[in-house]
Amino acid sequence: MTQTSWIESANDGRTHFPLQNLPYGVFSRQGEAPRVGVAIGDRIVDLNALDQAGLLPEAVRGTFGEPVLNRFIALGRPVWRETRRRLTELLSRDQGALRDNAALRERAVVPMAGATLHLPVSIPGYTDFYSSREHATNVGRMFRDPDNALLPNWLEIPIGYNGRASSVVVSGTPVRRPNGQIKLPDAPRPIFGACRKLDYELEMGFIVGKDSVLGEPVPVDAADDYLFGMVLLNDWSARDIQQWEYVPLGPFNSKSFGTSISPWVVTMEALQPFRRDNPPQDPQPLSYLRQGVPNAYDIELEVALRPDGAGEAQRVSHTNFRAMYWTMAQQLAHHTVSGCNVRVGDLMGSGTISGTAPDSFGSLLELTRNGAQPLALQGGVTRGFLQDGDEVVMTGWCQGDGYRVGFGEVAGRIAPAPAVE
Amino acid sequence: MTQTSWIESANDGRTHFPLQNLPYGVFSRQGEAPRVGVAIGDRIVDLNALDQAGLLPEAVRGTFGEPVLNRFIALGRPVWRETRRRLTELLSRDQGALRDNAALRERAVVPMAGATLHLPVSIPGYTDFYSSREHATNVGRMFRDPDNALLPNWLEIPIGYNGRASSVVVSGTPVRRPNGQIKLPDAPRPIFGACRKLDYELEMGFIVGKDSVLGEPVPVDAADDYLFGMVLLNDWSARDIQQWEYVPLGPFNSKSFGTSISPWVVTMEALQPFRRDNPPQDPQPLSYLRQGVPNAYDIELEVALRPDGAGEAQRVSHTNFRAMYWTMAQQLAHHTVSGCNVRVGDLMGSGTISGTAPDSFGSLLELTRNGAQPLALQGGVTRGFLQDGDEVVMTGWCQGDGYRVGFGEVAGRIAPAPAVE
Repeated sequence: MTQTSWIESANDGRTHFPLQNLPYGVFSRQGEAPRVGVAIGDRIVDLNALDQAGLLPEAVRGTFGEPVLNRFIALGRPVWRETRRRLTELLSRDQGALRDNAALRERAVVPMAGATLHLPVSIPGYTDFYSSREHATNVGRMFRDPDNALLPNWLEIPIGYNGRASSVVVSGTPVRRPNGQIKLPDAPRPIFGACRKLDYELEMGFIVGKDSVLGEPVPVDAADDYLFGMVLLNDWSARDIQQWEYVPLGPFNSKSFGTSISPWVVTMEALQPFRRDNPPQDPQPLSYLRQGVPNAYDIELEVALRPDGAGEAQRVSHTNFRAMYWTMAQQLAHHTVSGCNVRVGDLMGSGTISGTAPDSFGSLLELTRNGAQPLALQGGVTRGFLQDGDEVVMTGWCQGDGYRVGFGEVAGRIAPAPAVE
Repeated sequence: MTQTSWIESANDGRTHFPLQNLPYGVFSRQGEAPRVGVAIGDRIVDLNALDQAGLLPEAVRGTFGEPVLNRFIALGRPVWRETRRRLTELLSRDQGALRDNAALRERAVVPMAGATLHLPVSIPGYTDFYSSREHATNVGRMFRDPDNALLPNWLEIPIGYNGRASSVVVSGTPVRRPNGQIKLPDAPRPIFGACRKLDYELEMGFIVGKDSVLGEPVPVDAADDYLFGMVLLNDWSARDIQQWEYVPLGPFNSKSFGTSISPWVVTMEALQPFRRDNPPQDPQPLSYLRQGVPNAYDIELEVALRPDGAGEAQRVSHTNFRAMYWTMAQQLAHHTVSGCNVRVGDLMGSGTISGTAPDSFGSLLELTRNGAQPLALQGGVTRGFLQDGDEVVMTGWCQGDGYRVGFGEVAGRIAPAPAVE
């Protein structure tokens, strides 16, 4: 097998979707039901069509006609591998089985531009972690004590909380500004109204690939069997609502109005060449969090903002997923150490990804110091927080030798809040 | 129609399941698939069998062969009403359609004693509120500041947080003591080991009966369309793990290892005779939380504890659901005011239900002052927190004139923690 494809747009070195990637998603074309596909170059390969043509492994039979990936994912890691091997083969430059079958190719290889992309997974549970030391420190400085910004438990626990799965949406879905309770300084009581400090959070999420058993923890070094793939994630946040509501039980309405993910799930297999040594951790974590294998990943990340009315999005920060203190394996081990079970399709957010440099912060809260130092954008536009009509576009990729394994993007535009009576 | 049934065990005035109740659940008998039934007296009526015999409304056709209630619930309030009317008729003393059909009766009316009861609903999301003022005050006193026990936001917001739906189990399922991080006083770092302060929390939960739309709040006075029914709920809690982990994002591993609910969902229709005026609220809540109709319910509640090795459970507290400060309608309005959508089958816990009297507290944390004043039980047994083998049994009922509309019970026994290496 070569490393290039007969689909030429996969070979330009810049596409997020070369032969080395093959991320899974769910798409539809006008008048057709959603089904599973893989992205390659500027095309989507309809896996249901390939399955019906008998070109895919027996084990996956029928799973790609579903409107979500869950049934395929539940087949497990050996089947993920076998399917990837087969797809790599079918799409390689020198393989003719699909390339030379004009009728099937016409049916099964479709332009991404004309397709609608759907939420790829039915998400039984959404958990959001808080694993960037820089982000936790920045937030602690602003919301709590500047001199003791990092709480004592943060260096011991991959802190996480349960999020709201119902409002996870796919990239491109408009996000409505929430109404809620806002406590203004010096006012004796909160007011009710539209959020004034609407923010994004740059995160990545992993999709759980295997059910665990209630009461039985998943050891940290068993994580590979439980991680199917990753997506970009925007954890939209209403900072003013958050600040008033979050003590003592954590964020609720300030987060639950919407969470956006990218439509293509990049498999852990595609990410293996970008696996890196774990970050140093001091103090050494408790036994159940000690990793025997490298679990960090080198993924470049960027956030761009297109202010309402502007033609183009401008980059406002860039960082790398390697900056995270706690790894996905540690997050999973911690999540299940109590006996809590995970399920196929569960989405686990990383927490906001911030680096050390000021232009590497993953939220406006941090970039603008809670709105006090607005960003200066092109054309004299400034932003402390998001305004109606603003669009946030996040992207991420792994840089290989002459190719990129990318995540595409997760984008969302702010719609006005419902009128308050 | 009379108010008694030809199923005599429904008429004794003490049963939780008289003709006036008719709660829905999911049951199976040996070798048969789970299906939907209603409880009446000491029997279960197999609704799938009644449906197949053509005795139920056209609208419910096929929904009772499912292993969960969701499809039936999704049909909406007019169908809930029509079905209840029809079941009340079929089971009334003077109605012969089922009573006099021996073959069908044999198939469709089965002893509850021989049946297995299952989790009645597939739960897409679990939210837990914190709506008892007495509980919030008691906890604040112990975990935070004794002089300012109730946080400033508590009287404005029906505080809630996202729970973990995957580990919600039906009554009778053993609950494994969790391992986790515990920070002992004076120790510089946490240890990893089995929870030493395992507790229960007496709650009730409501089951959402209608999908709402993302971005569109549900007004507080529209709640009746969205509430299908209620269950008893035990929010098992690991107090030592909780105290170390919960700042700043809320409880996680201390709660996510298990939540038990009762198997019978008592419908809001059955609870209407027990609907009561709302509790006084001072200050008057913000506009979106102001209720135009009574939303409190008069439900007696008891918790009993059977220490490991003891023959019988002993009552350790009793209270009433009317004691709650925030109502279910307010919880729903608050949950959705940000635009967050709810879905059919969502479980919303009330929060621990504590009254003002010391024997009305809904957790051991409160009853024993965080273990400092252990309960003295029969036979010289004492309990600060739960030990392995202990069983907690919660029950609840509405007292009518000569009958009870009851919830049965939610019970769970503590299994030992996994061994720590």
